[in-house]
Amino acid sequence: MNYQNDLILRAARGEKTERTPVWMMRQAGRILPEYRAVRERLSGFKELVETPELACEVTLQPVDLLGVDAVIIFSDILVVPEAMGCTYLMEEKRGPVFPNVIRTQADVDQLRVADPQEHLAYVTEAIKLTVRELNGRVPLIGFAGAPFTLLCYMTEGRGSKTFSIAKKMLYTEPALAHQLLQKITDTTIAYLKAQVQAGAAMLQVFDSWAGILSPEQYRVFSLPYIRQICEAITDVPVTVFAKGAFFARQEMAALPCRTIGLDWNMDIAESRALVGPDKTLQGNLDPCLLYAEPATIRTATQEMLRAFGPDKHIANLGHGVYPDTNPNHVKVFIETVKTFQHDRG
Amino acid sequence: MNYQNDLILRAARGEKTERTPVWMMRQAGRILPEYRAVRERLSGFKELVETPELACEVTLQPVDLLGVDAVIIFSDILVVPEAMGCTYLMEEKRGPVFPNVIRTQADVDQLRVADPQEHLAYVTEAIKLTVRELNGRVPLIGFAGAPFTLLCYMTEGRGSKTFSIAKKMLYTEPALAHQLLQKITDTTIAYLKAQVQAGAAMLQVFDSWAGILSPEQYRVFSLPYIRQICEAITDVPVTVFAKGAFFARQEMAALPCRTIGLDWNMDIAESRALVGPDKTLQGNLDPCLLYAEPATIRTATQEMLRAFGPDKHIANLGHGVYPDTNPNHVKVFIETVKTFQHDRG
Repeated sequence: MNYQNDLILRAARGEKTERTPVWMMRQAGRILPEYRAVRERLSGFKELVETPELACEVTLQPVDLLGVDAVIIFSDILVVPEAMGCTYLMEEKRGPVFPNVIRTQADVDQLRVADPQEHLAYVTEAIKLTVRELNGRVPLIGFAGAPFTLLCYMTEGRGSKTFSIAKKMLYTEPALAHQLLQKITDTTIAYLKAQVQAGAAMLQVFDSWAGILSPEQYRVFSLPYIRQICEAITDVPVTVFAKGAFFARQEMAALPCRTIGLDWNMDIAESRALVGPDKTLQGNLDPCLLYAEPATIRTATQEMLRAFGPDKHIANLGHGVYPDTNPNHVKVFIETVKTFQHDRG
Repeated sequence: MNYQNDLILRAARGEKTERTPVWMMRQAGRILPEYRAVRERLSGFKELVETPELACEVTLQPVDLLGVDAVIIFSDILVVPEAMGCTYLMEEKRGPVFPNVIRTQADVDQLRVADPQEHLAYVTEAIKLTVRELNGRVPLIGFAGAPFTLLCYMTEGRGSKTFSIAKKMLYTEPALAHQLLQKITDTTIAYLKAQVQAGAAMLQVFDSWAGILSPEQYRVFSLPYIRQICEAITDVPVTVFAKGAFFARQEMAALPCRTIGLDWNMDIAESRALVGPDKTLQGNLDPCLLYAEPATIRTATQEMLRAFGPDKHIANLGHGVYPDTNPNHVKVFIETVKTFQHDRG
């Protein structure tokens, strides 16, 4: 594929770029009125996720409306548990709920390692449609949840501040947790390969709940499975975003992935020192900064760009954009990145 | 006051102790059946907080039932907003809710700097009763929320994963946020001094939502107010526990407090290196570890004790004990600390 704009791919590969590429986690959906217009016609969130034409439509919106350098396929990390036989509901106020939680050996045994052709075709179909519609304007990013984060939802059954039920399994039934993590990993690898096959030019693994683990548990229950995924994906650059895993930055540097995502708690210079010079870093503006006045957004974005430096950086927020963010403020962030001139000394 | 057991005070002052002292955040309340029996007789959580005899009763329970080396007064950080004129409700499933949130200049203007004699006498009375009942067995710990954490609840109006409304104020109306923080700080200083007057032998400041801020915002909106509190309290040792503020450990080392609390994400050796040799550290077992089998709890507790070393350590969990924890497992943790022999080489 020849892209008209391949800045993000070159930045991910560590090549010099004429400017820093920019996109935003959760840019497909949430903030745009055009997204809400699509969403309101539908029965619910899952209809949007499971209908390739609609997922394609909202995936593309940020290209023209926001001017980002890449799009991320509109989907949800919970399609993987769904494909494994553990269905979820998306409740308007409460978020995801799993009617049948996974807590026993029998629960784990009855989960299948999903075949993406059979159980996740709605995502690969949406990717194919989107790539066709993009027609090389910018690359498409595919994604999946990290196995540990998916275990959290599948065992807890819903969002939680502590995920104490999920963590209880790690401490009381580590062998069972490892079995579950392996099944999720096997499904995820097949799923991400199918995404690449369908046309995804980059992949991101979201370990959204990394921050609830102790450094020791993260080493045992999350990193090895992320490593398996990174080792299995050889065709496209992979980004690992482990929110809250400040304690694992050095170990993440040893993963066979190209890019490490930083959240807004992580100091940029310190993270670069911990990760070393080789990898590309992604992030990390506080999403709440987009509530501020344009002048403040501009100054903070420029400071961030200077701190990361001109190379091996993909500009992004340090978390998904929050739903009540003014799209005009988002544009200020994106335009600031796109017009910034690094002093290359 | 002469204590039969003053291990925790000596550890906080940095003196050598014959063994490591131990207590647990949230030990008063939550896990003990004896606590639930008291709680079930009452109309709600606030009745317990606001009735000195009952608060005293549940504060004392862990001394005999768990064998801890200190008690913490049963109360809530939200008594400070309440005293300032911003009342809260405690809803059984949802947690705290503020019917009138603080978002405008007028809202901040109408808050009072509370007089603890007038507005918080139920806490100081509970402390006096508890100290009398303890009769020197172990010291009593008083506490308050850090100003930033209280601002979070007062502006957001309820718990939140992101506290984006609270953070919005920091970015859009920093001067107003500082006014609110100063009013909270003035109240908190008077309140903590009243707790010491009533007999609290140590104090802890809980910055429960520190982890949602960027390092830069933490430096501007939280640390200066915690510093004011630490500077104002000169009679008793103060512990600062800023959950998630891994990025501020070096700066916390410069606070005029005696002890820094660590959460379970924070590596012990790294934290000691960042904080330096002078301060006492508190923590930091993952509260979910208490779900594990006794043998696992014992091994992990011993590892933790070795990592902290024999001096300048107060053993604790890295967060409040979770409500569904088996009290017998809590006892294993406490007994392991109390019987552990450090190899002083």
